[in-house]
Amino acid sequence: MRFASVMHGETPLAVAIEGDHGVPLVGISELGVDTPLSVLKAASLDRAGALPLDAIRHRPLVPNPRKVICVGLNYVEHVHESGRDVPDYPVFFTKFANSLIGAFDDIVCPPESETIDYEGELTVVIGERARRVSRADALDYVAGVTVGNDVSMRDYQNKSHQWLQGKAWEAATPIGPQLVTLDEVGDLSALTLRTTVNGSVEQEASTSLMIFDVPTLVSTLSEFTTLEPGDLILTGTPSGVGFRREPPLLLGAGDVVIVEVDGVGRIENTCV
Amino acid sequence: MRFASVMHGETPLAVAIEGDHGVPLVGISELGVDTPLSVLKAASLDRAGALPLDAIRHRPLVPNPRKVICVGLNYVEHVHESGRDVPDYPVFFTKFANSLIGAFDDIVCPPESETIDYEGELTVVIGERARRVSRADALDYVAGVTVGNDVSMRDYQNKSHQWLQGKAWEAATPIGPQLVTLDEVGDLSALTLRTTVNGSVEQEASTSLMIFDVPTLVSTLSEFTTLEPGDLILTGTPSGVGFRREPPLLLGAGDVVIVEVDGVGRIENTCV
Repeated sequence: MRFASVMHGETPLAVAIEGDHGVPLVGISELGVDTPLSVLKAASLDRAGALPLDAIRHRPLVPNPRKVICVGLNYVEHVHESGRDVPDYPVFFTKFANSLIGAFDDIVCPPESETIDYEGELTVVIGERARRVSRADALDYVAGVTVGNDVSMRDYQNKSHQWLQGKAWEAATPIGPQLVTLDEVGDLSALTLRTTVNGSVEQEASTSLMIFDVPTLVSTLSEFTTLEPGDLILTGTPSGVGFRREPPLLLGAGDVVIVEVDGVGRIENTCV
Repeated sequence: MRFASVMHGETPLAVAIEGDHGVPLVGISELGVDTPLSVLKAASLDRAGALPLDAIRHRPLVPNPRKVICVGLNYVEHVHESGRDVPDYPVFFTKFANSLIGAFDDIVCPPESETIDYEGELTVVIGERARRVSRADALDYVAGVTVGNDVSMRDYQNKSHQWLQGKAWEAATPIGPQLVTLDEVGDLSALTLRTTVNGSVEQEASTSLMIFDVPTLVSTLSEFTTLEPGDLILTGTPSGVGFRREPPLLLGAGDVVIVEVDGVGRIENTCV
């Protein structure tokens, strides 16, 4: 199944995707902490109210998540281009809920940064509360996956050894368009991710190349915190980011960035 | 004025403190994003429902903050004991809302960590939405201050160069007991902070020693994100943490940690 958080005019709606329509879930206005996967799957569908997808605006897939957790340096080639050592424990950092934008919204490029970069990432949506779950059981707590772009202000990221101020800029991280459940997406280690900037493919890799796979990430995080429905985990970017090019390939007003994960979805955002 | 988020039996209440009583704010169940300082100050008081403070349990001062931002290495002597360089930009990292506990709750010491440490900290509560505010104006957006203990699992903190997994453990960061407004607390750079472990004073310093003062922290954060009412900023700890002692002074079951900031308040927590 596929789900999304959308606006129809001024009305927020959670919808199930059926063909090229979004079918409102009765009594649910958005995906989040109150919508574990079991609730989404059991929701009544307002088929009479089905809306063409081109008549609705996608919000951030989870508009108000309790946690937005990112993973750094999770593909070996990206570790190398970053001049770092291959980690033996996942590199976790965070964004805020107000960092997020919808799948086709504009990325707000702040005037303060001169080095704005893209990072296409497979993104996990938690579906059930998870604490101290084993790697073997971890996927039982995952609702599904979506697509994210961990847009990063490199000059700010490097102001400190902690990265928050380079990663958590307001309204700069697109997430969506759809939550694709695990039964529909299949093997999370066999997905192809691709990032395109102004029509040129700049990142392309298989999720099989992750250093820490999705079950390992969920299990590791659940050791120290309860993951909750709607929590997002951006699982890291493959090689090909712009900041490490010679010369750097940086984002500015007018640039169009597409991130797609085959079988999952595609986000397309214009920098403004 | 002073405010708190408390439980009276099973009922969550936001209260104003008058003497040794908490006076419920009509229609407000907790401090948070929906309670900018202007709302707290304008709230009607249910004086007939006033409760003795010893009849109520303190929740985390803000039970569900949008952001819990911490500052590392913000006192020179602590930078030195940590073997780090003095930063030229604040070291920001985060915790989660579910990391927080009330002012007198037990600290859950996880069995996974063998190096659990205290960090007494003056903690700022945001009172109004703030984006790109100047240092000169920053305090206009602060509701007031409280007391926090940035309990840190050092072995986990050092598993990676990013600190999240050492800082965001569930139910291990006491915050409270009261929001003390700026007009009542006075100069934020002239407060004395003291941490006591099992009756022995282990940290004692003036907030005048902060490298980045409160207005600078608020202004710097507001450059990249909108600070919202209820957001918490733990402003860093002075020297005297346990992990850097020879031998280390670490926390375990039964240990009692008190953090107090003169004129602001005192938290007391037992490790379990």
